[in-house]
Amino acid sequence: MNRSESFLLVNFKTYLEATGKRAVELSKKIETASENVGVRVGVAPQFCDIERVAASVDIPVFAQHIDPVASGANTGHVTADSVKAAGADGTLINHSEMPLRLLDVDKSVERAKQVGLKSVVCAGTAKLAGAVAVLEPDMVAIEPPELIGTGRAVSKENPEIVTDSVKRIRNVNRSVVILCGAGISTGDDVNAALKLGTDGVLVASGIVKAPRPEDVVMEFCKAVLKAG
Amino acid sequence: MNRSESFLLVNFKTYLEATGKRAVELSKKIETASENVGVRVGVAPQFCDIERVAASVDIPVFAQHIDPVASGANTGHVTADSVKAAGADGTLINHSEMPLRLLDVDKSVERAKQVGLKSVVCAGTAKLAGAVAVLEPDMVAIEPPELIGTGRAVSKENPEIVTDSVKRIRNVNRSVVILCGAGISTGDDVNAALKLGTDGVLVASGIVKAPRPEDVVMEFCKAVLKAG
Amino acid sequence: MNRSESFLLVNFKTYLEATGKRAVELSKKIETASENVGVRVGVAPQFCDIERVAASVDIPVFAQHIDPVASGANTGHVTADSVKAAGADGTLINHSEMPLRLLDVDKSVERAKQVGLKSVVCAGTAKLAGAVAVLEPDMVAIEPPELIGTGRAVSKENPEIVTDSVKRIRNVNRSVVILCGAGISTGDDVNAALKLGTDGVLVASGIVKAPRPEDVVMEFCKAVLKAG
Amino acid sequence: MNRSESFLLVNFKTYLEATGKRAVELSKKIETASENVGVRVGVAPQFCDIERVAASVDIPVFAQHIDPVASGANTGHVTADSVKAAGADGTLINHSEMPLRLLDVDKSVERAKQVGLKSVVCAGTAKLAGAVAVLEPDMVAIEPPELIGTGRAVSKENPEIVTDSVKRIRNVNRSVVILCGAGISTGDDVNAALKLGTDGVLVASGIVKAPRPEDVVMEFCKAVLKAG
Repeated sequence: MNRSESFLLVNFKTYLEATGKRAVELSKKIETASENVGVRVGVAPQFCDIERVAASVDIPVFAQHIDPVASGANTGHVTADSVKAAGADGTLINHSEMPLRLLDVDKSVERAKQVGLKSVVCAGTAKLAGAVAVLEPDMVAIEPPELIGTGRAVSKENPEIVTDSVKRIRNVNRSVVILCGAGISTGDDVNAALKLGTDGVLVASGIVKAPRPEDVVMEFCKAVLKAG
Repeated sequence: MNRSESFLLVNFKTYLEATGKRAVELSKKIETASENVGVRVGVAPQFCDIERVAASVDIPVFAQHIDPVASGANTGHVTADSVKAAGADGTLINHSEMPLRLLDVDKSVERAKQVGLKSVVCAGTAKLAGAVAVLEPDMVAIEPPELIGTGRAVSKENPEIVTDSVKRIRNVNRSVVILCGAGISTGDDVNAALKLGTDGVLVASGIVKAPRPEDVVMEFCKAVLKAG
Repeated sequence: MNRSESFLLVNFKTYLEATGKRAVELSKKIETASENVGVRVGVAPQFCDIERVAASVDIPVFAQHIDPVASGANTGHVTADSVKAAGADGTLINHSEMPLRLLDVDKSVERAKQVGLKSVVCAGTAKLAGAVAVLEPDMVAIEPPELIGTGRAVSKENPEIVTDSVKRIRNVNRSVVILCGAGISTGDDVNAALKLGTDGVLVASGIVKAPRPEDVVMEFCKAVLKAG
Repeated sequence: MNRSESFLLVNFKTYLEATGKRAVELSKKIETASENVGVRVGVAPQFCDIERVAASVDIPVFAQHIDPVASGANTGHVTADSVKAAGADGTLINHSEMPLRLLDVDKSVERAKQVGLKSVVCAGTAKLAGAVAVLEPDMVAIEPPELIGTGRAVSKENPEIVTDSVKRIRNVNRSVVILCGAGISTGDDVNAALKLGTDGVLVASGIVKAPRPEDVVMEFCKAVLKAG
């Protein structure tokens, strides 16, 4: 496989370590590591931080969620238009910490398409990964919720769920990019994920809460090249 | 009553007319009008726009909603910490377009307090206005959802709901600031609202969708002074 | 196709015409018509009526929804166990008037399987029909929400959505039973639905609110035989 | 106080021990104990069991929840009409395991009134107890969620929350009946609850999961008389 296609996406969640100015600082460190090794890495900061992060780095910036509504009289919602206007390139959809109704997953993918945002739809099981691949997002991210934040990587703890997901996704969708996540914290975890047939990883605490996030990003990027 | 306490809050909702750079431009116009007349006016832009609006104006900036969760592993949520870090001074809570579970209204008021955000809790009926006043937010906003966006002002169409709300609120809470909204579009509507015992108004389309928003803000501010 | 497999399912919704004793009376009329013509017809009464309906008729009885939770400390929920204990044979899942989170659609299908209930998962678009077919329910029901309750039958107003759904469903699932619904009110509508490749229909107001429901059921059943 | 007003309400939740025929058996045991001692005890079985329980006993029967919607095209919802038609006398609203949006708490209380159901609105904190008392239900039940199902009674573990709730409720509502719950498992717990100013208790596992529920009910009833 051509690893120039590989992609690491760092979800900042609502960690204080990645809120406000610290979101900008963290994004810059990630950008530097990404450019040094030559592997694509994106960041997903909080809504309030998208604009200043996007203004500060050239790497892909993702929202963590969009609401499946059009712009208009929708107080407190997050529209595709607003994250796009702030400079986002894409959005997570249906993360296990923000699970959506089935029809809203579809609407959100459509909304993302309409404004030119890449969509990454998350799924917690292989069966659900197959189901969301039918909705034709740009990427599917397999994340078993029981491993999220544990430091026990899905690619090592439960490789079957990854291979089963890849198989089910490919049954219904030849071209969607496949990420996997949950517990990813070392270069080995990343390497294992790619060997199982994925195109990259979705990572959060493994980088955001690391003492030196830039080192972990570097390690992850090198693991990608090694898997090439 | 001392009208130096009066407050107009402009809810940008997710109107395209108030998204991205247009949120900044609109906020500046509102600030100018507010300063010219000497009446306090705040703005409530979308999450993605809070930071750049707060960096551009000195008037109060409010979020349109916060989630009742702490910072941490909460993907896609809007924390009190993140809107505070972006420069917000307060937040709407429980707007009729983002209705919350009862216990989450309380948690959101608490979260706002903890980080130093003013809370404006919305209620659609007089009875609900009384109930939310018990939760001790900084302000209560009475907004009958059936009048929102109609251009038919609550203060003229249904003055009873305003006076009944004020009575019920004062029964349980002496100090909370009382706003009213829905359909407010002229200075007369604002004047009527203040005469009914409120301390200000919550307005959205009446200003955001006006051909010259600054003129409407000016008219509203003058109406406040006249009611003094 | 063997029309002995065909199935008509009558959703009582929460219509007063089909509440309490009237649910029992309506079910008996439907049973009589079904037996007279020799076509399988099921009923989906409200939770409170399942037990007395199931005790009064021998036709299949479905719940309108189950919650994706296990029995235990879940106040106010509807468990698969409770509807099974009341005598239900199956359940609707994800009706457009009770849309579920994607992961809860899957959990509900699993819960139904565990207790021996047939699952009918609803989908409002062809793409969603394909996605839910991946979850391996017993039946998929295609119901474009914009036609529900209109009396304009999906099988005539929008035959493309039905054929597209059938195609997408069969791409991922060879054996699932396919129903379609929304606006079905005459035998012709039923006939058209079967001609488009479905195995039956899901109907509500077309029967429940008819002056003589038994006549409509009879007409529907005859249309099934004619399509054989 | 006149203890003829006292009320014990047994919430069956979705415990298997109280599902289907076992709901009827349990209700009969509770009725016998209630009649022997002469204290009012009600039961709150699952939706599917309301009708057969109400047909089998003469004690008050409550639903565990109603949806804030009118009868009509609402698939899978639980209407006030349907639980009333099944024989219910009242309903729980906003239990911590089924928390409602603030405006839906109000709508549910209204719906209950309209069809002649007694409403018991639950609240997890003293402040929320005060807020729901404003909505004028028939009863308020104070249940700190952190004590539910623990066997550590709210009336002994946290008497302050009960007395604070009673005070806040009485500030805004003189006549509402006050229950408390969470962890109630002995006659002493019941006695303590009444001494703190409540009119009765809401209990679930303490009775439903007891080896001999009738004995516990008897003990509770005697504790009520002793507190008289």
